[in-house]
Amino acid sequence: MSFLDKLKFTSDGLIPAIIQERSTGRVLMMAWMNRASLEKTIVTGKTHFWSRSRQTFWMKGETSGHTQTVRDIAFDCDGDTLLIQVEQTGAACHEGYKSCFFRSVEADGRSFRNTEPQLETPEEIYGKK
Amino acid sequence: MSFLDKLKFTSDGLIPAIIQERSTGRVLMMAWMNRASLEKTIVTGKTHFWSRSRQTFWMKGETSGHTQTVRDIAFDCDGDTLLIQVEQTGAACHEGYKSCFFRSVEADGRSFRNTEPQLETPEEIYGKK
Repeated sequence: MSFLDKLKFTSDGLIPAIIQERSTGRVLMMAWMNRASLEKTIVTGKTHFWSRSRQTFWMKGETSGHTQTVRDIAFDCDGDTLLIQVEQTGAACHEGYKSCFFRSVEADGRSFRNTEPQLETPEEIYGKK
Repeated sequence: MSFLDKLKFTSDGLIPAIIQERSTGRVLMMAWMNRASLEKTIVTGKTHFWSRSRQTFWMKGETSGHTQTVRDIAFDCDGDTLLIQVEQTGAACHEGYKSCFFRSVEADGRSFRNTEPQLETPEEIYGKK
């Protein structure tokens, strides 16, 4: 049996993929895959996703060069979430942070702070628009 | 501004929460919160979720005793995913594994293997049904 038969995609044919940096354990981002982008991820060893807002297939880093090399693909007990270990080139976040989760809630439960440095600006990554 | 104003809930009023064990960096599970369960999580310091299948509010560990004590709540650049650092009591997975992501895909891209020991059986956790 292929692990693909264990997976449950949403009614839109999607499954969320948590991306974790293998070397540090840092959770970098979460994005959605369809079956085709998951299969492409397995075959190429680079993460591919499905953009719900743009309704397009994309390889992480195709514009920025910040690709993700896959080291492990795990799936959860319910088969409805993936956890993918990668080696990340540069910043994972399109805002130039290593991780998209660069803001944490303060002890008051309302305000928040940045928890990591911005490595690059979006203009440096993508050029001026 | 409250961080809650930065969040984007789905049309069903939900947001996915990735739960990570702070001490080890292990990603334990992903589950869905609504605004009320997130606020309850902040106030109590224990993770609360919304069950899409049962359409109920639940505290992690309310039956099993395997509660999660919150140490940090982060949110991503798009405001549509949470990353919550916890200290986990016992197994996070209802199948008795520390993490719900206890299976990984093999190099052939199809077959899979267990990557961690089962700490308890579901019968030991929840009693015979």
